[in-house]
Amino acid sequence: MDQYRKGGFTLPGEAGYEELTLKMAEKWGADVIRDSDGTKLSPEITAAGYRIYSTICIIREHNTFALAHPDAQQQTFLCSDPKTAVSDTLVLDPLAGYFEEQFSVNDSAEAMPFWQVWDRTADRLLPPDQWEYANGRVTVRNCIPFHRYSVSFLAWRIWEEINMYNHTTNHWTSEHLRQLDPRHPQAWEYLQNWLRDWCAANPDTNVIRLTSLFYNFVWIFGCDLRRRTRFVDWASYDFTVSPAALRAFEQEYGYALTAEDFINRGKLQATHRPPTARKRDYMDFIQRFVAEKARALVEIIHSFGKEAYVFYDDSWVGMEPYGKYFASVGFDGLIKCVFSGFECRLCAGAEVPVHELRFHPYLFPVGLGGLPTFSEGGHPEKDATAYWLHVRRALVRQSVDRIGLGGYLHLTIGQDAFNDAIEKMAVDFRRLKDLHAHGAPAELPVTVAVLHAWGALRSWTLSGHFHETDWNPLIHINEALSGLPVRVKFIHFDDVKNGALRNVDIVINAGRAGDAWSGGDAWMSPEVVSEITRFVYEGGSLIGVREPSAADGGDTRFALAHVLGVDQDDGAYACHMSWEFQEEQAPFFVAGEAIPETAGIRLTDPSVRVLRASGTTPVLTLHQFGKGKAIYMGGFVWSPAASRMLLEILLFLTGRDGKEAGITDHPLAECAWFPHTETLVVMNNSGSPLDVTVSLPSGTVPVHTEPYEMRFV
Amino acid sequence: MDQYRKGGFTLPGEAGYEELTLKMAEKWGADVIRDSDGTKLSPEITAAGYRIYSTICIIREHNTFALAHPDAQQQTFLCSDPKTAVSDTLVLDPLAGYFEEQFSVNDSAEAMPFWQVWDRTADRLLPPDQWEYANGRVTVRNCIPFHRYSVSFLAWRIWEEINMYNHTTNHWTSEHLRQLDPRHPQAWEYLQNWLRDWCAANPDTNVIRLTSLFYNFVWIFGCDLRRRTRFVDWASYDFTVSPAALRAFEQEYGYALTAEDFINRGKLQATHRPPTARKRDYMDFIQRFVAEKARALVEIIHSFGKEAYVFYDDSWVGMEPYGKYFASVGFDGLIKCVFSGFECRLCAGAEVPVHELRFHPYLFPVGLGGLPTFSEGGHPEKDATAYWLHVRRALVRQSVDRIGLGGYLHLTIGQDAFNDAIEKMAVDFRRLKDLHAHGAPAELPVTVAVLHAWGALRSWTLSGHFHETDWNPLIHINEALSGLPVRVKFIHFDDVKNGALRNVDIVINAGRAGDAWSGGDAWMSPEVVSEITRFVYEGGSLIGVREPSAADGGDTRFALAHVLGVDQDDGAYACHMSWEFQEEQAPFFVAGEAIPETAGIRLTDPSVRVLRASGTTPVLTLHQFGKGKAIYMGGFVWSPAASRMLLEILLFLTGRDGKEAGITDHPLAECAWFPHTETLVVMNNSGSPLDVTVSLPSGTVPVHTEPYEMRFV
Repeated sequence: MDQYRKGGFTLPGEAGYEELTLKMAEKWGADVIRDSDGTKLSPEITAAGYRIYSTICIIREHNTFALAHPDAQQQTFLCSDPKTAVSDTLVLDPLAGYFEEQFSVNDSAEAMPFWQVWDRTADRLLPPDQWEYANGRVTVRNCIPFHRYSVSFLAWRIWEEINMYNHTTNHWTSEHLRQLDPRHPQAWEYLQNWLRDWCAANPDTNVIRLTSLFYNFVWIFGCDLRRRTRFVDWASYDFTVSPAALRAFEQEYGYALTAEDFINRGKLQATHRPPTARKRDYMDFIQRFVAEKARALVEIIHSFGKEAYVFYDDSWVGMEPYGKYFASVGFDGLIKCVFSGFECRLCAGAEVPVHELRFHPYLFPVGLGGLPTFSEGGHPEKDATAYWLHVRRALVRQSVDRIGLGGYLHLTIGQDAFNDAIEKMAVDFRRLKDLHAHGAPAELPVTVAVLHAWGALRSWTLSGHFHETDWNPLIHINEALSGLPVRVKFIHFDDVKNGALRNVDIVINAGRAGDAWSGGDAWMSPEVVSEITRFVYEGGSLIGVREPSAADGGDTRFALAHVLGVDQDDGAYACHMSWEFQEEQAPFFVAGEAIPETAGIRLTDPSVRVLRASGTTPVLTLHQFGKGKAIYMGGFVWSPAASRMLLEILLFLTGRDGKEAGITDHPLAECAWFPHTETLVVMNNSGSPLDVTVSLPSGTVPVHTEPYEMRFV
Repeated sequence: MDQYRKGGFTLPGEAGYEELTLKMAEKWGADVIRDSDGTKLSPEITAAGYRIYSTICIIREHNTFALAHPDAQQQTFLCSDPKTAVSDTLVLDPLAGYFEEQFSVNDSAEAMPFWQVWDRTADRLLPPDQWEYANGRVTVRNCIPFHRYSVSFLAWRIWEEINMYNHTTNHWTSEHLRQLDPRHPQAWEYLQNWLRDWCAANPDTNVIRLTSLFYNFVWIFGCDLRRRTRFVDWASYDFTVSPAALRAFEQEYGYALTAEDFINRGKLQATHRPPTARKRDYMDFIQRFVAEKARALVEIIHSFGKEAYVFYDDSWVGMEPYGKYFASVGFDGLIKCVFSGFECRLCAGAEVPVHELRFHPYLFPVGLGGLPTFSEGGHPEKDATAYWLHVRRALVRQSVDRIGLGGYLHLTIGQDAFNDAIEKMAVDFRRLKDLHAHGAPAELPVTVAVLHAWGALRSWTLSGHFHETDWNPLIHINEALSGLPVRVKFIHFDDVKNGALRNVDIVINAGRAGDAWSGGDAWMSPEVVSEITRFVYEGGSLIGVREPSAADGGDTRFALAHVLGVDQDDGAYACHMSWEFQEEQAPFFVAGEAIPETAGIRLTDPSVRVLRASGTTPVLTLHQFGKGKAIYMGGFVWSPAASRMLLEILLFLTGRDGKEAGITDHPLAECAWFPHTETLVVMNNSGSPLDVTVSLPSGTVPVHTEPYEMRFV
């Protein structure tokens, strides 16, 4: 086992705890020591023979420059809360309700042409001569009484949002950090020079860990503590905007974006909603800009003989590891913090030499959810194990190159259970990595295509972590898929039109009516609907979850109701009676609690088989359509049992028994078969010992597993 | 009390039970004896000095004529279930899935031009040369593979629907009755002559009770017993259609209606959905036709010295007691069967000399819901009392002229409890009628306007009985209002534009997004929205229930979100955080169980007061908007306590204490004050004795009431 005791592990070093750093590096088999945000390593550590990572957040910690060049700061569009006119004149305060420490109005001459005033009652843009801005207020004239008006405007973002979050949440009191826009020519010159200086001044650093690039995900604070966060979206592009960006866009695309393209009646353009064509254009435009600038930074780093890894969070917007330009940046590594299996797959599948996972919990007193971890009442070893159960399933399917931790190492003192658990995980990780190095695990010849409005760009993730998006059934499905022995791809609606269903066995569409995951108006396309109809009729399978293929304008609420065998009554079926039905035994394992009810579901015809119902509402159905089958589920809530159910559904739909990839006879035990080394990996996902039988192509194998054990046979 | 022992009571006589008939007439104080459907009175009864009602269903029981003139039968548009084309040719069976005993295809030369074939996938009407009809099948050519196609067609209705219901439900075996269309010239001649003959042959009859006129409400059966009723709508007009009607419509209106105006993508035009402008035109067209023909029948009846009462159910379509033409028919009386208070108000408010209620339960072995009444296991006296608690509240507010029963009188034998209960109700009814005769009860100077897409045309009712529409919060609200001491009117959206909010204190909008009761697209009108905004801003009140003012296309889901103080997240608020709130004590009585949660409700601003919440979802809120107030309720489920809550909300919104009309100090006791006779009526709506104090303008009065008692003080 000694071969698995060292390597592929990044330890957060801590100055002042040099001895501890070296001791823990030994225990966990680290080959890399890194600094963390706000910590600097001491010479005792940097000289101890480990590779060294150093963290840089390129756009912040330049307050002197930012204050000298306030127009080099980043911006965003904002929209005032609509206000009711009670006479023919109305005064609007643009920033009312926003957090005044985060924003200031950009009323510069170059910004004002982008401002807009809307009559929101009539959904009408006012001509510019109907309003004027002076002394921080917009005065609207010739209002229609009792219509509501709002002003959309550009605002400077005067507090870097991650720093702002730490201040307001963790009561930091240091100077507010500002952030620079690399689109500003002087700022861009300054940042490159700064990076060169940094590289020259830090010869011990082998790897620069960029946290991350330029533009933060959208995080808009309000002034009222009853709603401190007004809007937060891990994957939106609003914070990339500026007059310069908008002008460059217009020049390149031949049409101008307006405030309303971003403001969208005050709703903004959340990632959970289907993107407009203009938003897609703008994202592509920003992605190219970000890649170009990132490439320049990577070249500087390389010129100093260092490597450039990028951390995939915070100011990551525009980087898009599954976008068209990511590979062109030339990063040497991608680091992803993970709670979940889908995040491992997200990292593992990106086109970059080194894939590294940052495990949770971080070595912080309190976790992301605000509960204690490394402080009184915390159980860091339990948290670590809970996340590991998610992560290992995915690592069994697709390996990464490295793992590691973050935070303050001294918090591990006295946490023997945690320290031992991490040691064990590191060994298991190296063993899995070694297995993968000898050949991929056996896989079912089954390709699952997850269909939504974003397609491959949002492979695996919806936006952010599991717990940030867990009201969407799709993230639960992605989490289940991350550990199943099938090929998974993520496609969008144009892909369907372009033949993407060739070589696909099962299409999954899972979302809420009108959202990006269900697809919204994309389902008004007869081409998409008839192509999926053909696909199933000729023998393919469809799994629809919650409100799949929901759209307005058709004769059914679900555009694929005729294939799914169910439709939803949103009121339009008034006076139309439903089919009576009787629940039947499912031909596969059903984790009942994993399937919530969706209101209004009804059968389209009497041939549909109801495999589970909640009262008179079907929640799990099966419909034969031509040579193919469709499964409808009212929802999907991840659990080990739900994952097993999904596996059995995939097997049932494709007429397989699962032996090709190895399958256990217990819903709470998973396995993987590595044929090149004839190694069987069995994972006990339960808190009890399990004796299971694994079916393989060559026969069956009995395996005993301890609670939560991953056993290599 | 003897003055209240006789009069205003219609008894169903029964041949073969002459002695019983006269005995029960004496006990219940009847002044009228009627026959029931399928029964004929014997001379012993008709000669006993009572006025005699006889029942006629004018359009049925003419099978000989119908068989001789099959083109005089009634029709409807139907639409085949869409079928997926798997090649370029598709064959459709129009009637597949429909009940073959109810319909036959009308493929006559005059009908075929009205047929349509639709590509439902592309929402496209096919040109007529792309399909042909032969041998009962439609063959569609040049189909787009995997699109779905349906044919809309005219069908003869060959079984009168009430007769069909009785056959299929109660296992009748007699000949299937057919129905004639009075638009057919020969049928119309025949029907008039038949009525003249009938009147001449039945000199004892004083009142002809028409059950009802010509066109039944829409009731479409399927062939599969798992969905015997495919569609049922008590207030839709599909069964009035025919080529002759469509041609006459086009001639008058200058545009043609097509099958799709009725079929509406297979959903038909249910009353619960907002009517199109074309449907409104068509309804008016039919209403005039029905009134004209009904007037001719009434004139025949009058010419024989008889009166004409009409029963408001079954073939009532086009009659519309709250329509423009009802009064012009010249009916002498309107009879309404009642389970509920709103039905009493519906009857009482119609413009006709005599208003008569038919009480439930009918003297049938089994009730409408299929449970025993006058058979083993039944408790007819309990049923009668339960309905009476609803009915008396409404009678206290607005009297009718007569009450009565229906069915087989012999079933009362041995039912002493029931017979005594009816006797007591009849006395109470006469007492109330007498009080009203001396002057109206005191009322609050409060006018409530119920706002929906139908307005006054659907005063009080949605369509059908309470239990047929009880998933709509509005019917619960109407039921509560039917017994409250306020003025109630029903208005639609054009009324709002035309100044209907003058002299209104409170507007109620209660429905589901997109339905006729919420209003649907009517809320896309800035005029409507700004007028209600003005109304509340200047001091009016708004009560919104479930999904009030919901519409697409605005910046909020509820067009009145800014007034209500709440909006609904249907997904568009993705990434927008909600306001945190704390529940407050309401300034009025809250019947918590009466207010269900509506999903996705969130506050629009922090000034909204949450008076009741379900978890993190507000279910009852109060918002001050300008000088006015708005109340939001997630739903409303009728109960005596819920009625009281609604009364207290109306009082709170108008700043009143309720003494003007009299008010009790107990939520389960209601009262009415008749100032002209200085009579106080106190109703105990609970199963326990209650000692209550009633506040009146002149002071307070203590009153003791027995369980369910109506006490006159």
